[in-house]
Amino acid sequence: MGLQKGKENCITDVDGVKVGHVTLYEEIDDVDTICTGVTAILPHADNLFRKKIYAGSAVINGFGKTAGLVQLEELGILESPIMLTNTFSVGAVMQGTLQYMLEQTEEIGDTTSTINLLIGECNDGYLNSIRLQAVKPEHAIEAIRTATTSPVKEGAIGAGKGMVCFGHKGGIGTASRMVEVEGHHYTVGCLVLSNFGKKEQALFANLNLKNLDTPDGSIMMIIATDAPLYDRQLKRLAKRSAVGIGRTGSNIDNGSGDIAIAFSTANTFDHHAAEPIESIKFIRDDHPMMNQLFQAVIEATEEAVIRSLKFSETTKGRKGRIVEKAPL
Amino acid sequence: MGLQKGKENCITDVDGVKVGHVTLYEEIDDVDTICTGVTAILPHADNLFRKKIYAGSAVINGFGKTAGLVQLEELGILESPIMLTNTFSVGAVMQGTLQYMLEQTEEIGDTTSTINLLIGECNDGYLNSIRLQAVKPEHAIEAIRTATTSPVKEGAIGAGKGMVCFGHKGGIGTASRMVEVEGHHYTVGCLVLSNFGKKEQALFANLNLKNLDTPDGSIMMIIATDAPLYDRQLKRLAKRSAVGIGRTGSNIDNGSGDIAIAFSTANTFDHHAAEPIESIKFIRDDHPMMNQLFQAVIEATEEAVIRSLKFSETTKGRKGRIVEKAPL
Amino acid sequence: MGLQKGKENCITDVDGVKVGHVTLYEEIDDVDTICTGVTAILPHADNLFRKKIYAGSAVINGFGKTAGLVQLEELGILESPIMLTNTFSVGAVMQGTLQYMLEQTEEIGDTTSTINLLIGECNDGYLNSIRLQAVKPEHAIEAIRTATTSPVKEGAIGAGKGMVCFGHKGGIGTASRMVEVEGHHYTVGCLVLSNFGKKEQALFANLNLKNLDTPDGSIMMIIATDAPLYDRQLKRLAKRSAVGIGRTGSNIDNGSGDIAIAFSTANTFDHHAAEPIESIKFIRDDHPMMNQLFQAVIEATEEAVIRSLKFSETTKGRKGRIVEKAPL
Amino acid sequence: MGLQKGKENCITDVDGVKVGHVTLYEEIDDVDTICTGVTAILPHADNLFRKKIYAGSAVINGFGKTAGLVQLEELGILESPIMLTNTFSVGAVMQGTLQYMLEQTEEIGDTTSTINLLIGECNDGYLNSIRLQAVKPEHAIEAIRTATTSPVKEGAIGAGKGMVCFGHKGGIGTASRMVEVEGHHYTVGCLVLSNFGKKEQALFANLNLKNLDTPDGSIMMIIATDAPLYDRQLKRLAKRSAVGIGRTGSNIDNGSGDIAIAFSTANTFDHHAAEPIESIKFIRDDHPMMNQLFQAVIEATEEAVIRSLKFSETTKGRKGRIVEKAPL
Repeated sequence: MGLQKGKENCITDVDGVKVGHVTLYEEIDDVDTICTGVTAILPHADNLFRKKIYAGSAVINGFGKTAGLVQLEELGILESPIMLTNTFSVGAVMQGTLQYMLEQTEEIGDTTSTINLLIGECNDGYLNSIRLQAVKPEHAIEAIRTATTSPVKEGAIGAGKGMVCFGHKGGIGTASRMVEVEGHHYTVGCLVLSNFGKKEQALFANLNLKNLDTPDGSIMMIIATDAPLYDRQLKRLAKRSAVGIGRTGSNIDNGSGDIAIAFSTANTFDHHAAEPIESIKFIRDDHPMMNQLFQAVIEATEEAVIRSLKFSETTKGRKGRIVEKAPL
Repeated sequence: MGLQKGKENCITDVDGVKVGHVTLYEEIDDVDTICTGVTAILPHADNLFRKKIYAGSAVINGFGKTAGLVQLEELGILESPIMLTNTFSVGAVMQGTLQYMLEQTEEIGDTTSTINLLIGECNDGYLNSIRLQAVKPEHAIEAIRTATTSPVKEGAIGAGKGMVCFGHKGGIGTASRMVEVEGHHYTVGCLVLSNFGKKEQALFANLNLKNLDTPDGSIMMIIATDAPLYDRQLKRLAKRSAVGIGRTGSNIDNGSGDIAIAFSTANTFDHHAAEPIESIKFIRDDHPMMNQLFQAVIEATEEAVIRSLKFSETTKGRKGRIVEKAPL
Repeated sequence: MGLQKGKENCITDVDGVKVGHVTLYEEIDDVDTICTGVTAILPHADNLFRKKIYAGSAVINGFGKTAGLVQLEELGILESPIMLTNTFSVGAVMQGTLQYMLEQTEEIGDTTSTINLLIGECNDGYLNSIRLQAVKPEHAIEAIRTATTSPVKEGAIGAGKGMVCFGHKGGIGTASRMVEVEGHHYTVGCLVLSNFGKKEQALFANLNLKNLDTPDGSIMMIIATDAPLYDRQLKRLAKRSAVGIGRTGSNIDNGSGDIAIAFSTANTFDHHAAEPIESIKFIRDDHPMMNQLFQAVIEATEEAVIRSLKFSETTKGRKGRIVEKAPL
Repeated sequence: MGLQKGKENCITDVDGVKVGHVTLYEEIDDVDTICTGVTAILPHADNLFRKKIYAGSAVINGFGKTAGLVQLEELGILESPIMLTNTFSVGAVMQGTLQYMLEQTEEIGDTTSTINLLIGECNDGYLNSIRLQAVKPEHAIEAIRTATTSPVKEGAIGAGKGMVCFGHKGGIGTASRMVEVEGHHYTVGCLVLSNFGKKEQALFANLNLKNLDTPDGSIMMIIATDAPLYDRQLKRLAKRSAVGIGRTGSNIDNGSGDIAIAFSTANTFDHHAAEPIESIKFIRDDHPMMNQLFQAVIEATEEAVIRSLKFSETTKGRKGRIVEKAPL
């Protein structure tokens, strides 16, 4: 009954999308361990400021510190990589991403205006000594520079290195689905940074370990598609991710910052344009393909969460804490 | 793992809540059948305008015509019964509800200002000859007048008479859950008007009948609680209903107006007040009870949808169409 | 410094826009007077359901009962006339407008889905015996049927018959502005239903009469343009109306339901479409023309309010109350 | 007709509010000049994480990069200083503010969860060599540490050092108003970081200099009050700021990130609480005092903008550019 999976079951099945990870791990002493990282998602290989794309977001639960949503909501466009990291590294990743974009684009802040950056986060403070702020601006730059269109490495990697999900090791997961109607073929990919849920909430498996005393956690969900959609519609896609995590067992707990960002690579918006009038192509909301796209988001989000556990590994963090791989 | 059900597993388990139904059914000729109705939910037995309560709403998907949400969003209070009916009867039910409230409250529109009414709807046009607009203002008044605190009749009744859900007969369903933390006991009840989903989407049962050619449908979800919460928090409760319907199998399809309204009976706000300063009591968002309340909303919403099918009956509507009871 | 006014300084300067009024006035006895009406704004002369247009709304202050904004927000399209009336007649006008659209469009509610109606209101209960609910569905139908592209009659007419603004007689006002950049010419028109403000708040004139004991009131602002814009952008236009009323002296008081709806006639969206992919043309947000459009909204809204007073007349209403024409 | 001004006509008239500035200025060479800074607003003198306060925000126009609004919107509370700086220094100021809060509060990120930071910005890139990112985390810390309850220094200082407003030198401005009803006395203060408007838009003065080729700019508006209000109501206050800037002449241009944050010092919310149930005191929305509070926000915002020009000084920035003091 489910939709067909994409070629690699991965967000990079959407043509042009690139993902890069930088992982930091170091046992400093008996108390402190650095166990964190950065993940960059690039919608396409060109300069993202000069060649913007349409995007929308949904704040499923706003107990989160994602930066950059104000302008995304107002203008419906994305003009930078989407960056994921831990909660206390939003500032450093913002600086690194800015540095990268300034180097690539000499007009920003000089002859043209500023740039909107998009930095999402989850709190990996159970395993990671988050107060040490180990992530530096150069890690963000490295994650962007090393991003590729290859299948994404999942689990305890990049921003996912220190995350905990359903009481087990979570982190980065991804999945994709294909939609076909009347000869139109499109792909929807989802990449999650999973850091939510208690083990007894999981609906997809019996998770029988002892409970960890973790906070409510969070999840970032990045949805990519090559289907032609504009910002209002991409917001609708982003909103469906709530069902995807709900089916894994999430109750969208109070302290869980559950935030989704959806973008389409099908239309671009040039920063330096000659003409005052633009046009966008988009699938009609009332076409059956739209419901398939919604379904694709839900299925890909649900599976991406499960894969973030499945491809993780038992990880030792600060204070000697160990978070085990889920029995999947 | 689920929470304990309320005494009658019903929205009226929340002390003071009353529900009333008016059901209209008439086979007019070979083409037209009236198969519709009105359902009224009253948060308490007193004058609702004079003794207002706190409430919040969530538009899960806005393909719907619910009236009254603008003011609810601005002021966070409810001052009238919540009325449910078919899409083309919002106007008539609004008039009837207004008439009822004006009769009960002579100051409205004379010495004091107006009143905000809350009318939700789903489209029962597959079974009901909706163009005939059979619902009249007096049906709304009757639904209010006959509302009781008794266990709610479910299935093909009231506003649910003509609704279709997962390709089978849907309509009114209700369920409740109890929350207990540190000696504090609260009840959450949910009443749904279910009219969404295709049979192959159902996750709770194998529904093997032929597909009906129904539109995407909709669902109204009314959440009641005696837990002390204020409008911002009640909006958070309302948002969790998305997970409840997601778990039944909904993809929140394009044409489905999925709207939730949550109210608390614990604090009241008098229209005619002596003092300029009020106070509200509320559960802290970061208290574990809040997550239990979220879970209660999700479980009660999911079960209310299933019960709306379980307690329905095979129904014949316009153009000789028959919608069968689900095999539950 | 201001922009050039349109040909007739009227919302109907936007090509195709039609406006119709029905005015009700009857002194019943010493206490009760019917002093109210209906105003219909039609974006174009064709069937509005079959040939939809893009629109956006802004709830400047949500102490109001406007119906239809939920779906407008979700889908960004308008598929019916915009109707204005008094607060207690939203239901009747909704029924009449539905009746009209059903007669014009036999497929609604039969072979296709339902229709979203848009009914705005202000409270004319100071002059009008609003509890009598004098407006009937047929008055809405008549307002639609008699709508023309001629210059709009302003002041104490249509829905504006009983409205009070800055302590003087308000009601219907309209104005327009023209925008020209690089050979592109566009018109912005605004029509208001003014019913807000106390006399000492007016910034545009010295209003020296005694104070009336009126409630905070409300204002509905309808903005039309032929500039190509899509829903997100039209929401931006609608939001600028706050500045327009702010410059007249409004503090956007608590009880004032200040709601703006903006539509563009430049793109249409056919209900019955052959192809799954659509396209929209639109002015780039960063083109200087956009700021001119914002300015046009602000100037036209401000002037429309002043004209609603200027073209009103001293009016006698219920309980012998008299509201005088402003000295403009 | 206006309300009475506070003792010092300053945001620090609200008891307990502290403001601190760090100003950076250095002519590096013929091309580059550092002309920027940081301003910190502290709602009270205690630990802001442990003793949170209620707050609300309004995105008047979202062409801005303010961080921290997602969680403020969800939870309605403020738990850190409000920081203002230039657009490219949001990351550095976020890091510095985090560092300060971590030092003050050892439990954050260790035994309790994370902290939400609130960083607003305007683009001072016309005068400031913004690409040099001269602001460092320690500047944020210094702005917080040196904050005092004394009257705020205005004009080209702190985050306002490089800002341009109506074609003249803008920056920091502040004003306050007092509200009195039935023996209740409250103060509303506003502090703005002004960086918007073209000279011909100004409604408060004839500004006759040549036009600067500045981008649309932005404005941050921080509103403080000791009136007891909760988050929903504070959002209402924040929204009224649109009228304040509208009266100065702003059309809320496309590129202007116009964002308001309002907080009340009257209720506090302890992070480490013993009891699950809290209570808030608040002024009823329908009490006449609320309209006075709205008026106070509007008047204080308008005057704060004008004062930000009045108390600025002619400033030389990058590329030899000079922005003159307005003739006020």
